[in-house]
Amino acid sequence: MSLESAVETAVREGCARAKAASRRMALATTAQKNALLARISPAIRASKPALLAANAEDLAAADGKGVAPALRDRLRLDDGRLEALAKAVDEVAALPDPVGETVTETVRPNGLRVTRVRAPLGLIAMVYEARPNVTVDASVLALKTGNAVVLRGGSEAIASNRALAALVRQALVDEGLPEDALVLLGTEREAIGALCVQSETVDLLIPRGGEALIRYVTEHARVPVVQHYKGVCHTYLDAGAPVETAVRIVVDGKLARPSACNATECLLVDATDAARLLPPVVAALRAAGAELRGTDAVRAHVEGMTAATDDDFGMEFLDNRLAIAVVDGLDGALTHIARYGSGHTEAIVTPSAANAARFRSAVDAACVVVNASTRFHDGGELGLGAEIGIATSRLHWRGPMGLEALTTMKWLVDGEGQIRG
Amino acid sequence: MSLESAVETAVREGCARAKAASRRMALATTAQKNALLARISPAIRASKPALLAANAEDLAAADGKGVAPALRDRLRLDDGRLEALAKAVDEVAALPDPVGETVTETVRPNGLRVTRVRAPLGLIAMVYEARPNVTVDASVLALKTGNAVVLRGGSEAIASNRALAALVRQALVDEGLPEDALVLLGTEREAIGALCVQSETVDLLIPRGGEALIRYVTEHARVPVVQHYKGVCHTYLDAGAPVETAVRIVVDGKLARPSACNATECLLVDATDAARLLPPVVAALRAAGAELRGTDAVRAHVEGMTAATDDDFGMEFLDNRLAIAVVDGLDGALTHIARYGSGHTEAIVTPSAANAARFRSAVDAACVVVNASTRFHDGGELGLGAEIGIATSRLHWRGPMGLEALTTMKWLVDGEGQIRG
Repeated sequence: MSLESAVETAVREGCARAKAASRRMALATTAQKNALLARISPAIRASKPALLAANAEDLAAADGKGVAPALRDRLRLDDGRLEALAKAVDEVAALPDPVGETVTETVRPNGLRVTRVRAPLGLIAMVYEARPNVTVDASVLALKTGNAVVLRGGSEAIASNRALAALVRQALVDEGLPEDALVLLGTEREAIGALCVQSETVDLLIPRGGEALIRYVTEHARVPVVQHYKGVCHTYLDAGAPVETAVRIVVDGKLARPSACNATECLLVDATDAARLLPPVVAALRAAGAELRGTDAVRAHVEGMTAATDDDFGMEFLDNRLAIAVVDGLDGALTHIARYGSGHTEAIVTPSAANAARFRSAVDAACVVVNASTRFHDGGELGLGAEIGIATSRLHWRGPMGLEALTTMKWLVDGEGQIRG
Repeated sequence: MSLESAVETAVREGCARAKAASRRMALATTAQKNALLARISPAIRASKPALLAANAEDLAAADGKGVAPALRDRLRLDDGRLEALAKAVDEVAALPDPVGETVTETVRPNGLRVTRVRAPLGLIAMVYEARPNVTVDASVLALKTGNAVVLRGGSEAIASNRALAALVRQALVDEGLPEDALVLLGTEREAIGALCVQSETVDLLIPRGGEALIRYVTEHARVPVVQHYKGVCHTYLDAGAPVETAVRIVVDGKLARPSACNATECLLVDATDAARLLPPVVAALRAAGAELRGTDAVRAHVEGMTAATDDDFGMEFLDNRLAIAVVDGLDGALTHIARYGSGHTEAIVTPSAANAARFRSAVDAACVVVNASTRFHDGGELGLGAEIGIATSRLHWRGPMGLEALTTMKWLVDGEGQIRG
């Protein structure tokens, strides 16, 4: 056996403590778990000064290092953000508990009753960056579903994360539940690699962050991973799309929140209707502040557009930039999306029910949107309540991961002495 | 980039061809997929002489190497087994197609209709040993759900597997579907390692076989894996268990098919009722040919029993041997099962509804059985129809993997111009 570093030992022991706690969490009743969550939101509200002081430490350290404004903004807590965090906890508390829910139930010809129910997953590990609210969001979703959680947040948020985790751990103690149902790991880089190999204890590992982090985890994991890869989302304007609807959906998709993974990164327009659709859509996008890159076929319809390069397609810009291409109808759009899409969210604007149906079945993505904005691919918007992220994996879960995504199943067989023979 | 061996190239190219075929399979209608399966069972029946000749080659090679009788038996095809194989295909054809099925459907306050439907997983890879019927069983389950499949069977069955795979591929061609929806790989050992890293193409890898194979795949996989680990299944006789029921369930659990993963490997008996339960249960087990190993507390109740060693607990015997222990009531049983069980199948025989309920919720296993035999944990018995195996994983699927387990989900959002803002 190779020698373990101090960080590896700390990760292994932290996971073992959390795994033991998960066994007690699995037996907690819905009432107990809701009572736990009901302690967390008032604690956040009551601890605002201490939480803001911890966050100020992180911000001062970030300023000392001269971090980018976008990162500083993700790191920053204020009164409003803490209030939103507390509210999010209350919303999770109000959601139905999936644990114990019957998924299927049948009585077999021999009289056996077979019930498939949802059960807690066990120990969920999460690696994330910057945003301290994830510490609470991920914890309450995992705890509500009877799991324990091991968190490895970014070093830039360590003081904020410690303060928030301490508050959740205190709520666990106050509710008579094991405090190790939340274990916050150190921020050493090595801790990520160590987490990847805790196959004795970790049931699910969720990396959230840049593509490099997700690739590293996927490459090194000996535990099951659900990925949250980038969103290279397209909106396709089909022949006959109403101009006003097209404009609204494209402007919202690109510009309502350009840094979101469900933002539209590429606009596709049917060649036969591009002369009608492109000029007003481009004018609206420009007026709203988008920076456009078009193919030659696009530039033939509008003045003064920068030429797109090959790199502009399949690119997650995460800013105001939008790539635009003219395609050969629905088939052209499907080919383009199959080549450049990331399987996250794809939208069509069309008056044709037949084309909508074909788009829905032919596009291989977590979410397919007809006549609405790509921005709707989000747990809250799809009716799940809070989410731990949006899975681009195909196994276990795909799309917004709410409470149900944090459960596994258990088969219950009830008999009166039956044997198989 | 490191140089690829010829085997690695063959695996990578085989997976790429199958992945391309999976995109066409995903668009096949239920009628087309059923028509495909309807070609396979008559083809098996019509090709019996050729299939038996291929199998005879494998058997002759096996005899030349002097393989164990149990392996030879798993390898062997005969008229009855081919008939059973054809019948299994017909049964899968008759099952409902889960692809496109609505799992949840809601209309949001803004009028968006949100539908979660089942979609094909993509490319399923399977590594297995000995039994040639798996070549057909796995293929038809994967094809019925609109997937493609890459198979790496054992070298001992290569002639049989080639003959069966050729027949399925011919049926694909005859139905106008891509023949590469089934790709049979070579039997080189290196092919397993190469399959483990096909993350560009393989969506799910299922290893079926001994623990060493499963551990190797889990350790080396860069693709999602669903494990089928061993079954160390317990049957616990609670205080007041009716003797006649206890006898029937334990004898069936242990002896009906000792080589199955859902066979009972260990009998637990409540200490307060052991004097009543043990003598008749032991007598019946002995009469039926079981070889018993008991703790001292067990041996105090019955004559002439071999002493169990520590190694007898947590052991998957796969033969007539049964370990027996006396435990301190339900809590003692739960502790024993948590320590030694493999999370596969656990049973209780009890007259107490309260104890049954506690056992059901406290035992962490894929299947929990009350007052029936552990042997019922099987896709057919639980009403799923055919299965590709029994998953002991917690992620994606747990328990018998039928058609539904070979699908992922897709979120469909239908609007009339809604934006999120």
